[in-house]
Amino acid sequence: MASASFRHPKPKPVPFILMVKAAPKTWSDSLAEIATAVQSALESDPFAQAVRPNYLARWTRVYPCAAGKRLRPALVHWCCSLLGGNPENVLPMACAVEIYHNWTLVHDDIIDNDDVRRGNPTVHAGVLAEKTAEGLSVAKSTMLGQSTAILAGDILQGWAIRKICELRSKDVHSDLILSLIERIQDFLCRELISGEALDVDMSVQNPAQITENAVMDMMIGKTGALLAYSCEAGARIAQHHLNENSEEIKQLHLFANHLGVAFQLRDDWLNLFGNADVVGKSVGSDLTNRKPTLFFVRTLTRLEGSARDDFYHLSGRELSPSEVKKATQMMVECGVVEEVVELMNAHAENAIRSLQMFPDSDAKTYLTHLAQYSVARLK
Amino acid sequence: MASASFRHPKPKPVPFILMVKAAPKTWSDSLAEIATAVQSALESDPFAQAVRPNYLARWTRVYPCAAGKRLRPALVHWCCSLLGGNPENVLPMACAVEIYHNWTLVHDDIIDNDDVRRGNPTVHAGVLAEKTAEGLSVAKSTMLGQSTAILAGDILQGWAIRKICELRSKDVHSDLILSLIERIQDFLCRELISGEALDVDMSVQNPAQITENAVMDMMIGKTGALLAYSCEAGARIAQHHLNENSEEIKQLHLFANHLGVAFQLRDDWLNLFGNADVVGKSVGSDLTNRKPTLFFVRTLTRLEGSARDDFYHLSGRELSPSEVKKATQMMVECGVVEEVVELMNAHAENAIRSLQMFPDSDAKTYLTHLAQYSVARLK
Repeated sequence: MASASFRHPKPKPVPFILMVKAAPKTWSDSLAEIATAVQSALESDPFAQAVRPNYLARWTRVYPCAAGKRLRPALVHWCCSLLGGNPENVLPMACAVEIYHNWTLVHDDIIDNDDVRRGNPTVHAGVLAEKTAEGLSVAKSTMLGQSTAILAGDILQGWAIRKICELRSKDVHSDLILSLIERIQDFLCRELISGEALDVDMSVQNPAQITENAVMDMMIGKTGALLAYSCEAGARIAQHHLNENSEEIKQLHLFANHLGVAFQLRDDWLNLFGNADVVGKSVGSDLTNRKPTLFFVRTLTRLEGSARDDFYHLSGRELSPSEVKKATQMMVECGVVEEVVELMNAHAENAIRSLQMFPDSDAKTYLTHLAQYSVARLK
Repeated sequence: MASASFRHPKPKPVPFILMVKAAPKTWSDSLAEIATAVQSALESDPFAQAVRPNYLARWTRVYPCAAGKRLRPALVHWCCSLLGGNPENVLPMACAVEIYHNWTLVHDDIIDNDDVRRGNPTVHAGVLAEKTAEGLSVAKSTMLGQSTAILAGDILQGWAIRKICELRSKDVHSDLILSLIERIQDFLCRELISGEALDVDMSVQNPAQITENAVMDMMIGKTGALLAYSCEAGARIAQHHLNENSEEIKQLHLFANHLGVAFQLRDDWLNLFGNADVVGKSVGSDLTNRKPTLFFVRTLTRLEGSARDDFYHLSGRELSPSEVKKATQMMVECGVVEEVVELMNAHAENAIRSLQMFPDSDAKTYLTHLAQYSVARLK
C-alpha cells in the first residue's frame, strides 16, 4: 500500500477528522507491537552472548529469541496500562517473564523427552543432532545434548532475574524491584515448579486414580502462576503502593488463573481435535503419553467395562490417525468433550468477569479479547 | 571431658585472668560456628517446605541441609569482617551462596551421572531408589529421579536469590542488595555455568588435545567464580560504598581464584592418592571418567610411544586398585605429580599474598589458614 502513494504524487487531501482519528488498535495489533519490542530487546541483550562454549551461548538464546505469542509480556504491559501506568517502563519485566517462561520450557522438554518445540528441535535434540553431525558418538552427543539443555535452562533463570534488575533504569524504586524479585521466588518459582512436578508425578500414576482436583491444581501451578505473576508485576509497577494482597492484585490473580485453565484446556482440546499442520505438534500425542488431561481422566471415569478397557488401550503407545479418531469419538460420545469445552468457556467468562472492578480502557478490552481468544484459537 | 567435672563437684576456682582471656579462636572454630549458624538457618527456612509433591520438597532440602564444609559461607563472613563489617548482617548471604553452590551440585550430579555425594545418594539416584522400592518400574523411577533432580536444582537457584532479598532485614540498603543480585547473574551465573559447560565439553574431547589453559579456565569458572562472589559479597556488605571494581574486590577475586585452583588441584590429587574411606569417594574415578585434570592432561603430553598408550589405556574404564596404582605411579615417575603439586602450593601462596593489602585481623588469619588447609586437607 505504501508504494501506491508514489504513483499518486498529488493525492487528495485527507479530511482532518480521518487524520486524527486512526482506526482503533485491536488487541492483536497491540500484541504484535509488544512482541516486536520484546523480540528486539531479547535479540540485542548481551547477557547470554558471553556464555561459553559457543554452542551453549547459542542454544541458550534459541527459545527466548524464537518468535512466540509473547502472551506473558502482553499481560505485564496491559495490566500496567490497566492500572494507569506507563507501559514503556515495564519492558524489562515483559522480557523477564518471557525468559522465565522459556527456562521452564527448556527443562520441561528434557523431562518430557520432547524433540520438537514450535516446529524446531528442542535444545537437547538440537545439540544431539549437531554433535553427531560433527562426528561425535550418539552416546556422547546425547549426554552433551542433555547437559546443554539443563545448563541453558539454568542460565535463562538467571537472565530473567537480571532483566528485572534493569527496571532500575526505568525509575522503578529499588524497594519495589526487590519485592518483585522476592515474589518471583516466593510465589512463582515454588508454584510453577510444583505444578510441573505434579504433572510429572501424575504421568507415572494410574490415570484412573487421578482426581480432577489434582489436574486443576497442577494446571493452576504450571500455567496459571506465571500468568498471575505477569499481571501482578505490571500492575505493581504501575502503582508503586499496590501490595500483593490488594483487591486489584487478587482480581488479576483470579483473571490469570481462569485464563490459565482456559488456555490449558484449549491446548488439550487442540491436541485431540486440532489440525497438526496448524498446531505444529502431532495430534494425539497426549494420548500416546497418557497425559492426564481433564478430557482423558474424565473419560476414564465415565466409561465402564469393555468400553473403558478399549479406550484405555487407545493410549500409552503410538497411535495411527484412525486410532486417534476412534479415541476422540469415544470421548465425544460419552459427553466428556462437550462438558469440558463448556467448563473451558466458563473459565474464559470468569476471567473476563474478574476484570469488572477496573474502569474501561483499551487495556481492559485487550485483556477481554485475550480471554476470548484463549478458547477460540486454532494453535 | 565434660563428664569429668561431675566427678569433681568442687573444682578449684579458675584464676580470673584465665576466665576472661579465652584461648584464641582458631579458623576451624570460626568455621564450625559459621557452619552451625548456616545449618540452623537452612533447616528452619520454610522456603522449600511449601513445594509439592512432598518428595520434591524433601529432596530439594537434602543437599543444602546436609552437613558440609560451608567454606563459601565462611568466605562471606570472613571477608565482611576483613573489611570491618558486622558479620551478623551477612547470614542470609552466607546461606545464599551455600544454596547456590548446592543447586550446581544437584545438576552436576545428573550431568555426571554420579550416584553418590558425600557418602549419600544423589537426588536422582535417591529418588530412583525410593520409587522402585515403592513398586514403580525402573524406567518410570529413573525418569522421576531425573526430573526431580532437575526441578530441585531449579528451586534451589530461586531459593538462593530469595535469601539475598532477606538482607533487607539486616539494614542492608535495597540498592546494594539489588546490585548483589545483579552481580550474581552478570558474573557468577554466567562464569560458573560456563565453567561447568566447558568441563562437560572437555569430557567428550580427545584428552590429548586439551590444553592446560583450557583446564585452568574451566577451574576458575567452575570453582573460582562462586568463591570470588562470596568474598565480594561479604566485603561489599561490610562497606556499602565498595563497588565491584575497587582494589579490595580485585584482590579478593585474585585470592578466590587462586584458592579455587588450589582446592581443585587438591581434589584431583585426592582422587588419585587419597584414602577412599576418608575422601568418601572412590579413588581413581577421575581416571575411569577420563576427567581432564591437570595431572591427566600433562601426563598424556609428557609420555611418548608405548608408555603413553599404556597410560591412556589405564583410563576410560573401571580400574582395579592395582591399575589405579600403576597409573599414578606412571604420573609420579614422569615428574608430573611433583610439578602439579608445586603449582598447587604456588596457588595457595598466591592466594595468601593477595591478602597483603588488608590490615591484620582474625579474619585475615582465618583466610590465610583456609588457603593453607586447601592444599593440605585429606578430604
